[in-house]
Amino acid sequence: MGERALIELIRKICTPGPHVRVGIGDDAAAIDVDGNYLIATTDMLVGRVHFPSGTPPEQMGHKAVVANLSDLAAMGSEPLGLVFSVGLPRGIAADFVKKLLKSMNASARAYGTYLVGGDLNESDDIIISGTAFGVVPKNQLLTRSGARVGDLIAVTGELGAATVGLKILLEQLPQKGYKKLIRASTHPVARVWEGRFLAKSGAVTSAIDITDGIAANLWQISRMSKVKLIINEEKLPVNPLVRKFAFKYRVSARDFYLFGGEDFELLFTVREKRWEKVKRGLQRRGTRVTEIGRVVRGRGVYFEGKRGLEKMPDRGYEHFR
Amino acid sequence: MGERALIELIRKICTPGPHVRVGIGDDAAAIDVDGNYLIATTDMLVGRVHFPSGTPPEQMGHKAVVANLSDLAAMGSEPLGLVFSVGLPRGIAADFVKKLLKSMNASARAYGTYLVGGDLNESDDIIISGTAFGVVPKNQLLTRSGARVGDLIAVTGELGAATVGLKILLEQLPQKGYKKLIRASTHPVARVWEGRFLAKSGAVTSAIDITDGIAANLWQISRMSKVKLIINEEKLPVNPLVRKFAFKYRVSARDFYLFGGEDFELLFTVREKRWEKVKRGLQRRGTRVTEIGRVVRGRGVYFEGKRGLEKMPDRGYEHFR
Repeated sequence: MGERALIELIRKICTPGPHVRVGIGDDAAAIDVDGNYLIATTDMLVGRVHFPSGTPPEQMGHKAVVANLSDLAAMGSEPLGLVFSVGLPRGIAADFVKKLLKSMNASARAYGTYLVGGDLNESDDIIISGTAFGVVPKNQLLTRSGARVGDLIAVTGELGAATVGLKILLEQLPQKGYKKLIRASTHPVARVWEGRFLAKSGAVTSAIDITDGIAANLWQISRMSKVKLIINEEKLPVNPLVRKFAFKYRVSARDFYLFGGEDFELLFTVREKRWEKVKRGLQRRGTRVTEIGRVVRGRGVYFEGKRGLEKMPDRGYEHFR
Repeated sequence: MGERALIELIRKICTPGPHVRVGIGDDAAAIDVDGNYLIATTDMLVGRVHFPSGTPPEQMGHKAVVANLSDLAAMGSEPLGLVFSVGLPRGIAADFVKKLLKSMNASARAYGTYLVGGDLNESDDIIISGTAFGVVPKNQLLTRSGARVGDLIAVTGELGAATVGLKILLEQLPQKGYKKLIRASTHPVARVWEGRFLAKSGAVTSAIDITDGIAANLWQISRMSKVKLIINEEKLPVNPLVRKFAFKYRVSARDFYLFGGEDFELLFTVREKRWEKVKRGLQRRGTRVTEIGRVVRGRGVYFEGKRGLEKMPDRGYEHFR
């Protein structure tokens, strides 16, 4: 059973209640509470699956917090707090647990929020399951389903760095010259401020955080907004070290920047007339942002090339599993 | 490192923010949002640790929902929704996943709430990590720290049934005559209605759900409320089948009704003058409730016996691990 079939099954089983504005299938859930939306999202990291062997606890804790806050950011919500259920193997060193918890707390505080509760269990592998929640005014909610014909498509930051960084770690390749990529993988950033800025701008029609590779995330916006997305591949903000790495190892750079996960950048659509203002606002904060395409009538995701339109593969990276 | 030392460490690391009314250490967190408290709680179930081998997915799903809703109930909150992060071994049968999700959804609906989001992962063991959230008016919040001298102590339902039921299943003992205990273990009930009733009554000063055995939960109330609790052991509503089982197998019934976990009953303290009214309200709904002791000046938890006060052991059941 594939992941998409499974999500479809879950959506069929878990029909939303009347007060549920956004249920299964978006970055986070949005529930109607007294004129605001309560936003909640959950993300589980599994030691053996998500982390290269020997990953220090500090990196695990940081990533668990960022993965959850990034989903909130994609809904336009500031975080109110996080709860974590943690599974640890029997006999794990107290020092490991201490470092893990300290890093989770420090990462939350770095984004102006707090760990407010948790549950500890015994498990075979290290399991870090977090839930982040926040509140967003009703007219500021960002979802995957609001993109409109005529909008521009934009993305914060750069693409592909975290995926290549993880590959270097996992395959123990020489790190020289690629430190920035490795850091992108071990110290990801959640675009919390940017998510709030985009939500407040009133100009952004849809948003998603890039965790499955931008190709998969573009397809999700296309399907949920029922629009066609035309991407200019040359405009994609690919980290130059990603191209250098791909050239050196004779692999396709596309595998990293199109299908590579865990960049935690925000992909969004924005009203064309207000794009310049949004861009300037982000740049003033020091956040790189790039216009990469446009929304048109139709369905699907396409590259605009010299030989016409080329369909973008509808898949995400398998996270090197 | 023991569990209590670990929780103490976590409390030290994760200091609460200014808007956090209740942080680490209660049944759930309470965060100040526009005049109400947002309540959030998380609970992780690990296949090998929490379930007898061969447990059907329906029971796993049901229990995961109930464990989370029970924590909300203990804060006096109705549920607004649940999110789940689920870890499943690669190659698990699609039918298992379907039954698990259907039961989680059905259990949520049975309590008038919904699954609104989730995350699926690959893991070695089955991991079901849930977060439930709700909202409660500020003057209705129930915590572990509000018990006052002069209060009565009361508990809903019966004690010990789920623990013996689980023991029968785990040790494959004859089930004849003990079906009710087995059902208490496989189909636990969250006291959601009762939690709201107690919160609205204005007469209840503290509450906790019984998941670690009533002895451990009494100690938690004593420590967090800074009071002494005097319990009349003869009044404890022990399920008669629990005594029968203990007699037959020549084991201590106390191990089950004092230290047995996962009854999911509510233990609470209530103003003495308003106890009768609270009792009648619960009984009208068909919920058994029993007065078991009283709150006095001092610290600790004691039995009142013929030979004076006997200190209650400060430990919970190890859940047969």
